[in-house]
Amino acid sequence: MNEFELIARLLPSLATNDSVVVAAGDDCAVLDLGVPGRLVLFKTDAVVEGIHFTADTPPEKIGHKALARCLSDIAAMAGQPNSALVTLALPKDFAVARVEKIYAGLNALAQRHGVAVVGGETTTSPERMLISIALLGTVAKDQCLLRSGAKPGDAIFVTGQLGGSLAGRHLDFEPRLAEARWLAEHFSIHALMDLSDGLAGDLRHLLQASRVGAELRAASIPISREAKTAGRGKFSAKPPLLAALTDGEDFELLFTLDAKSAVRLLDAWKKHFPDLPLACIGRITPEPGLRIRDERGVRELAVRGYEHFAAKKSE
Amino acid sequence: MNEFELIARLLPSLATNDSVVVAAGDDCAVLDLGVPGRLVLFKTDAVVEGIHFTADTPPEKIGHKALARCLSDIAAMAGQPNSALVTLALPKDFAVARVEKIYAGLNALAQRHGVAVVGGETTTSPERMLISIALLGTVAKDQCLLRSGAKPGDAIFVTGQLGGSLAGRHLDFEPRLAEARWLAEHFSIHALMDLSDGLAGDLRHLLQASRVGAELRAASIPISREAKTAGRGKFSAKPPLLAALTDGEDFELLFTLDAKSAVRLLDAWKKHFPDLPLACIGRITPEPGLRIRDERGVRELAVRGYEHFAAKKSE
Repeated sequence: MNEFELIARLLPSLATNDSVVVAAGDDCAVLDLGVPGRLVLFKTDAVVEGIHFTADTPPEKIGHKALARCLSDIAAMAGQPNSALVTLALPKDFAVARVEKIYAGLNALAQRHGVAVVGGETTTSPERMLISIALLGTVAKDQCLLRSGAKPGDAIFVTGQLGGSLAGRHLDFEPRLAEARWLAEHFSIHALMDLSDGLAGDLRHLLQASRVGAELRAASIPISREAKTAGRGKFSAKPPLLAALTDGEDFELLFTLDAKSAVRLLDAWKKHFPDLPLACIGRITPEPGLRIRDERGVRELAVRGYEHFAAKKSE
Repeated sequence: MNEFELIARLLPSLATNDSVVVAAGDDCAVLDLGVPGRLVLFKTDAVVEGIHFTADTPPEKIGHKALARCLSDIAAMAGQPNSALVTLALPKDFAVARVEKIYAGLNALAQRHGVAVVGGETTTSPERMLISIALLGTVAKDQCLLRSGAKPGDAIFVTGQLGGSLAGRHLDFEPRLAEARWLAEHFSIHALMDLSDGLAGDLRHLLQASRVGAELRAASIPISREAKTAGRGKFSAKPPLLAALTDGEDFELLFTLDAKSAVRLLDAWKKHFPDLPLACIGRITPEPGLRIRDERGVRELAVRGYEHFAAKKSE
């Protein structure tokens, strides 16, 4: 049983109350606590030594990454982050200087985005470090963007370039907070999420939440320089397009809007964010499932990402 | 360097913003997010296998304890809990039935207190389970009770009976949410906190935050049956009073109010909470430091709790 199956099994029995607008299943929980015109966003995210970073990772980057991942989830709702709590589980013999550097990286990012670090706790984890961030944010009631609003005929967009994040970007990416808020303020975005587990898998979650399907154009998917380089390396078996579809930790924005607004969006985007690519990678379809089109035709992408498709291709 | 020293070192550099009312240092962070008449409370707390529970602990009780500890911090501000996120770090080969039972214990407690469980995440912790709870609550602006309001002449009160929690109470205690709200609504409480690290150590934090001292009456400190029993056991070296002063995980309320209101409080309490003892255990003094009075006179309690005092006594 994987994480998603476990969550699906636990979901129906979770306690609830009248303030819940969106519970588990989207990028953040959404609550109505009575703030006039705004909803509260609530999210936690943990990074674990040996999984999300290593003992050699510069500590400032560990702190940056821990908070940036959580901020990316606030961006995924077009929200404004407000305050964070930091849970640091450390071996007993931790080095104080290392902890201070973790906080330095975390604080620098927090300050750039107006986030208050209002406390947290340290606890003992004898074998490996774990950092969990709890984050509060808010969003205008009419601008909170969920995964579930995609409609047939929508154009699908993605920011940045995908794949190969583990070469370094996963440690110093900047969460797309300003970009997401700009989108929500200026366009009628139907569905929005951030990319954390890889485009193919994450898009599938958006499609399921929206009860629609999608067809991607292989030639339009933006592939990062790292994914292209890795694809040429003799130790890598992952072609660049496969990396862009299935590598995790991109932390870019994935969203849909009515195809009629696509050109206007691309024009406005170029003016406001000239340094960040925006690509239209496909369209939402009424038929369920996720397909990809290349010069050889249209094929299904398998549930577990691109692996199954790639295997078929080589048959 | 212990947890408190580490936090003190990190505190001055933490990022902040205009919504922060109380940052790190009290039982919860307190934020003004614009809810009319109310403040938002924000707290995280983690329990770790081998430290806060064992591999043998019934899983329902692990879930109960993880949430109850965090709810106790909301009680410590006289707040109303609203919603929780659950971070579960698990070995790869976790048993689904065990996780479901953890959630069952957690959900039952959440439902009793109107708390929505709005999601969270599972991540990997190869060596031992860790559960971190992030909790949101609210409190009326004029009823939020901090640690820092104690005044010379105040009477010091504690609910319940102290010590020996590890005999079992730490796994199934009920957080004192209703009691704390009743106190804030009906009395002018000056300072409030919950007991997690032991009366002597926790009271010292309240005194430091309020820049006052205290004198306790040894005979008035309520000692639990478990602490008395353990004190008689041949393997225990801890006298019952020492256990009541220094054992952790009591999760009772510690508070102060003007001594003139003490009798009225004790009378009203008995009517409203006939099953929960309330004891006046001493008074706040203008002189700093923590002292205890018994039949042999008044003595200082050492910084690290009661140990130093006990050692002196046996000389």
